[in-house]
Amino acid sequence: MAKHFADRMLDAIEEKQAPLCVGMDPLYERLPKQIREIASKSRGALSEQSAAAREFCQSVIDVVASQVPCVKLQSACFERCGPMGMRAYFEVVDYAHEKGLLVISDIKRADIGPTAAAYADAHLDEVFLGEGTQEHAVRVDAVTVNPYFGADGVQPFVEVAKEGGQGVLVVVRTTNPSAREFQDLKDAENRRFFERVAERVNDWANQAGCVGDSGYSLVGAVVGATYPDDTRLLRDLMPNSLLLVPGVGAQGGKVEDATLAFHEDGWGALVTVSRSVIYAWERPEYQHLGEVNWEDAIEVALVDTKAALAEALARRAAMA
Amino acid sequence: MAKHFADRMLDAIEEKQAPLCVGMDPLYERLPKQIREIASKSRGALSEQSAAAREFCQSVIDVVASQVPCVKLQSACFERCGPMGMRAYFEVVDYAHEKGLLVISDIKRADIGPTAAAYADAHLDEVFLGEGTQEHAVRVDAVTVNPYFGADGVQPFVEVAKEGGQGVLVVVRTTNPSAREFQDLKDAENRRFFERVAERVNDWANQAGCVGDSGYSLVGAVVGATYPDDTRLLRDLMPNSLLLVPGVGAQGGKVEDATLAFHEDGWGALVTVSRSVIYAWERPEYQHLGEVNWEDAIEVALVDTKAALAEALARRAAMA
Repeated sequence: MAKHFADRMLDAIEEKQAPLCVGMDPLYERLPKQIREIASKSRGALSEQSAAAREFCQSVIDVVASQVPCVKLQSACFERCGPMGMRAYFEVVDYAHEKGLLVISDIKRADIGPTAAAYADAHLDEVFLGEGTQEHAVRVDAVTVNPYFGADGVQPFVEVAKEGGQGVLVVVRTTNPSAREFQDLKDAENRRFFERVAERVNDWANQAGCVGDSGYSLVGAVVGATYPDDTRLLRDLMPNSLLLVPGVGAQGGKVEDATLAFHEDGWGALVTVSRSVIYAWERPEYQHLGEVNWEDAIEVALVDTKAALAEALARRAAMA
Repeated sequence: MAKHFADRMLDAIEEKQAPLCVGMDPLYERLPKQIREIASKSRGALSEQSAAAREFCQSVIDVVASQVPCVKLQSACFERCGPMGMRAYFEVVDYAHEKGLLVISDIKRADIGPTAAAYADAHLDEVFLGEGTQEHAVRVDAVTVNPYFGADGVQPFVEVAKEGGQGVLVVVRTTNPSAREFQDLKDAENRRFFERVAERVNDWANQAGCVGDSGYSLVGAVVGATYPDDTRLLRDLMPNSLLLVPGVGAQGGKVEDATLAFHEDGWGALVTVSRSVIYAWERPEYQHLGEVNWEDAIEVALVDTKAALAEALARRAAMA
């Protein structure tokens, strides 16, 4: 039996002294020129883009591996590179593991039961890379899923994850401007839709066999940082779930707001920063480093974010 | 400018005299023995499964192409075959087009705006297959999307689809047992969540540039046949949307119930049958044909389904 997902994640957070995840959304048009030049030796536009995505993510991993416990890969950006994009994707997962990082696969899939089971196999089960004696298995540490189908669409992921010591992070509150359109619809008791989803996530999280030694479940949730009052509420509704918190940085969420996703003891959440770090050389405060030194810009932006989060968590602890 | 998706679909329905789509969910374990034997010559388990999925779907297409306007490919089943599964997937899309079929890509993706845009590019834009002089572009005719993120998560698909003469089918009412868990939550006005989603789908469908000459929009909806009263209601809430209707057959929906997704003139919906047709040789009524004659079983099951749907639509027209 593989070690429990939440226990592994908490150990990794402790080791790196940072509840921080770097999200990798490699969009070809935004990649540094040097990366695109290396990749241009590949044949065909889509294989060039796959190669560029892989090169870029591997370089990002080299920069961040000593600083954070975890990276998150955005499936959409790899799927966009055509069929070979998914190979690049699993190669990046493999590389991240070599460098001691946990990997969250951001796929946001869901469907009816038998189809959800196929997605769970596709994304939580082993995928084989390499040939002959080099052949070896790769598998991610957690996936994100969409709740719209209810329990049927989530449970097949939970079953596979239980076996593999992996996590299932259910999208509860998203960070986008139109998140409120459906997620904030109120029921007859004045409760919003996403609160109902959170209550069910809490049920799923507390099923037999789902809670690890740390007290946290393999069923977690994605809770955007852009609506602070909701974040506080959702922390209470899902006490045993690890919360993955996107939205800080490029999407306008503040580090202070993200701290509301943590319990008062400073545990229970993982803040994920993507574009504000991986494209840091584009930001006014880091532009002086130059695109050619994009890896330095990523490192400085990550160190800055890590310090800001540590400070914000310390301030919150002092107030508690 | 490519011809409008709904206009193309209506022409194809008229040509084949059947508002019927065959859904292809190729699960390796359920494929006929002959297919698995052909595929076993491929190297490695996942490439064997990809090859089997492709072989099987191409054979199904050979059987059904003269009978129906459209096939639907279940992305999960191809993703499950690892990175080469997506190549098999696009090869099947290509083959279906060669045989004159429209192709709906059942991906049910959604995310925040920039990520939804990457998914839209990945799945609605061209993908290149073949090498050298054989290289050619493939692209699907429509995709399914999940509404949980609101407009931001859907609109990027609509923008790409508008350019390409393609369709976007928003999942509104699903067929699974736990569909009601979230989709039926009632708001303060006693309206259910999926009704609110349907109202927004209708807004999106009637945006500038979305409605074709046929009066139908490129924005359609997925409406399961398993809740007949809801189907009737949803037909009214989204008058200009083509409704894709799964759930007949293996999932327990009846052909009569599916007819409620049509307007009284007999247009406006497309019933999709998957497991009950593509695995027909497993069904008691077709088992006498034998697994070795699985293609015959598929053909007979499809002809039977087509006749049952035509009869049910005729009965409904007579009552109107």
